[in-house]
Amino acid sequence: MICINTGNHMDVMVNIEQASQDELLQAQRQLEQEYAKLAALNLSLDLTRGKPGPEQVALSDALDGILGGNYIDADGVDTRNYGGLQGLREARELFAPVLGADPENLMIGGNSSLSLMYAVVECALNIGLCGSAWSSQLDKPGAIKFICPVPGYDRHFAICEHLGITMLPVAMTDSGPDMDAVEHLLATEPGIRGMWCVPRFSNPDGVVYSEQTVQRIARLGQIAHDSFLVLWDNAYAVHSFDDDAAELPSISAYCDALKTQDQVVQFGSTSKVTFAGAGVAFLASGERTRTNLSKHLGYSSIGPDKVNQLRHVRLLRDAEGLGAHMRKHAALIAPRFACLQRELAAGLGGSGMGHWTEPGGGYFVSFDSLPGLAKEIVELAATIGVKLTPAGATWPYGKDPENSNIRLAPTFATLPELEAAVQAFVCCVKLASIRQRLARA
Amino acid sequence: MICINTGNHMDVMVNIEQASQDELLQAQRQLEQEYAKLAALNLSLDLTRGKPGPEQVALSDALDGILGGNYIDADGVDTRNYGGLQGLREARELFAPVLGADPENLMIGGNSSLSLMYAVVECALNIGLCGSAWSSQLDKPGAIKFICPVPGYDRHFAICEHLGITMLPVAMTDSGPDMDAVEHLLATEPGIRGMWCVPRFSNPDGVVYSEQTVQRIARLGQIAHDSFLVLWDNAYAVHSFDDDAAELPSISAYCDALKTQDQVVQFGSTSKVTFAGAGVAFLASGERTRTNLSKHLGYSSIGPDKVNQLRHVRLLRDAEGLGAHMRKHAALIAPRFACLQRELAAGLGGSGMGHWTEPGGGYFVSFDSLPGLAKEIVELAATIGVKLTPAGATWPYGKDPENSNIRLAPTFATLPELEAAVQAFVCCVKLASIRQRLARA
Repeated sequence: MICINTGNHMDVMVNIEQASQDELLQAQRQLEQEYAKLAALNLSLDLTRGKPGPEQVALSDALDGILGGNYIDADGVDTRNYGGLQGLREARELFAPVLGADPENLMIGGNSSLSLMYAVVECALNIGLCGSAWSSQLDKPGAIKFICPVPGYDRHFAICEHLGITMLPVAMTDSGPDMDAVEHLLATEPGIRGMWCVPRFSNPDGVVYSEQTVQRIARLGQIAHDSFLVLWDNAYAVHSFDDDAAELPSISAYCDALKTQDQVVQFGSTSKVTFAGAGVAFLASGERTRTNLSKHLGYSSIGPDKVNQLRHVRLLRDAEGLGAHMRKHAALIAPRFACLQRELAAGLGGSGMGHWTEPGGGYFVSFDSLPGLAKEIVELAATIGVKLTPAGATWPYGKDPENSNIRLAPTFATLPELEAAVQAFVCCVKLASIRQRLARA
Repeated sequence: MICINTGNHMDVMVNIEQASQDELLQAQRQLEQEYAKLAALNLSLDLTRGKPGPEQVALSDALDGILGGNYIDADGVDTRNYGGLQGLREARELFAPVLGADPENLMIGGNSSLSLMYAVVECALNIGLCGSAWSSQLDKPGAIKFICPVPGYDRHFAICEHLGITMLPVAMTDSGPDMDAVEHLLATEPGIRGMWCVPRFSNPDGVVYSEQTVQRIARLGQIAHDSFLVLWDNAYAVHSFDDDAAELPSISAYCDALKTQDQVVQFGSTSKVTFAGAGVAFLASGERTRTNLSKHLGYSSIGPDKVNQLRHVRLLRDAEGLGAHMRKHAALIAPRFACLQRELAAGLGGSGMGHWTEPGGGYFVSFDSLPGLAKEIVELAATIGVKLTPAGATWPYGKDPENSNIRLAPTFATLPELEAAVQAFVCCVKLASIRQRLARA
């Protein structure tokens, strides 16, 4: 571990609403000094992306050699040869509980759930997945629309932008997307064909959708267009910091009852379970959607890597094995989130200069500065060697209307690096906030 | 190995052009008897697909455990974490010579070159790869066209059909596609935007494109539309039966001289080197095309499986290691091709009932029956338990105008299975040929 000493970390505690002009000016001077000292440290810290740390990926080092030369699965399939578009039965049985779905409703993909999501959206758009191709229904540019809870995941938004799909933001609440707003949009706005969801430990808010929210989302297939799809990206399904974290109700159960199975596609992966980029991705949906998708994927693939599926089956074994493995991740991640929370509270608690989430799992803390400051804070941090996710990234088209949301990702850094990065971040937030206040005074 | 005794294999030797009506009738009776005996054996044999056999895939069993727990590549990249859309440098250096390309012009993909081909065509069609999107240039259904040498690979044709691309067949010659016909088509037919090629040991003919053919194909970018792409599927680049097999000249060298690098995309994979479906795929092209493709793939992937790339680097090491590995494959494959040639010659030599290729590498023998008989032969064989590639599969839309081409794939079967399958095939060819002759008499 690199030990980083940020020097005399000064305790500049003012409440931006209550401080006098003089107090603000004094605080600003102190912060400018602190900022200059941080700049002199030539920091090189990175809180941009939700990457597991080296100790986390090392938890799965046993994958190399785990087959002991036995490449045949429990059904006698030689995983070294072609075929098997749906994935090994053993792998489907292992991963189905992660999504709360039946193994027969699962398909295993390659190394990336993002690739599966792209394939689903692209197929629904140009070929037809659950009903006819969206592009054949709506051929005016921008006429096809997706509901996007905000703040959200930049790679979801990038898929829409790349494929010419118009994004309609809907606010997140403590229980998931604002479902009144979602239902209102579906009733009033033409052309809506999809909705992104990260239902457990949402990216970046860390919200776990409530039972009522899950139920209402499962019902959308009844009130939306027949070809409407919910993209249910359950990326952090088993990624809680402790066993007390809020559970996510299975959307499959509700979809079965409501006959909307084909309009919800669930995604998961082991990118943050085993190796990021060398894991196994999977999806679950109703039979019609799965059959159509399988047919579509059959044009571009003879089947995903079955050897890697078998490695994962041998390493993780079952739900219990997976749970034990995830507790090891939690033991590495939880202290980092605790450090982040501690430093934010110590530096900004009671300051009125921002608020942030305290998730029970996932990979992010969502920070909201005072309106209009996110870009400046990210620039201030970049200047002194602390990389943050670009301001706006959590919004469609990179446009955060309040210019206030910043996603913090504490998992990859070491604890000393993280501590230093957050202290620098706090300094930038304070400096930007007080400068703004003084400029307006 | 399963030992299959097809019983009293009868030597029905007639030349279909020279035999008298009586001789044909007698031969037909004998063949009906032989066919009935074969039917009674309840054979279950499969010559459909170019699958490596179990002994072949076992040549790479050392991949499991080969890292010895060291997941860091020569450049210090932790292959267990995200990133690396272009692929590891070590992997690009290993595979570049396979395509006769520079490592910096390579991109490593996932487990399937077919997926890379699909991504290239789909991107060029809907997004724009080498120039603007084909769909924006030509929006009438079927207006976008590909040149397809025939007989060819069914999965190439399926991609075109799935994406609504019209296929224009061009005959294969001993030196590759009929280039006069190709150049004439480009000069006279509007809307041509691509051409499929399997340049070494073509599927199914086993032809190695000549130097002149390679040169003329490299020049197509100068005479075709700016956004025209050659899809150069070098699937059997290192898959010769012995060291005397014809070499393929590097198309990269010609493209560099002619400034057409961006209009040729070369593909390769280790599907038939290590594990089929758990190997590494790669492509090479010019900088503009690669940059655009990389940008496009970046929307659907954070990067391919780098751990598997590293496994391959450690197993195959370099061009020499790869060559030694491929000679082990040849030692397993060559006897199967020899068996196939021997049985075809013994059963059909001098009969006038068909002709076939004698490739120096690859995975297929291309058989041409008398016109109008391929479907019947495939059905006759299926009835007695010998699965063949569907007749017509080697032609666009599954429509072989002569109904004569059948692709034979001898690699997966054991030698006794293969011998039995080819003897049964020979019986079906003779029976169908003589029945046709007698019906016309």
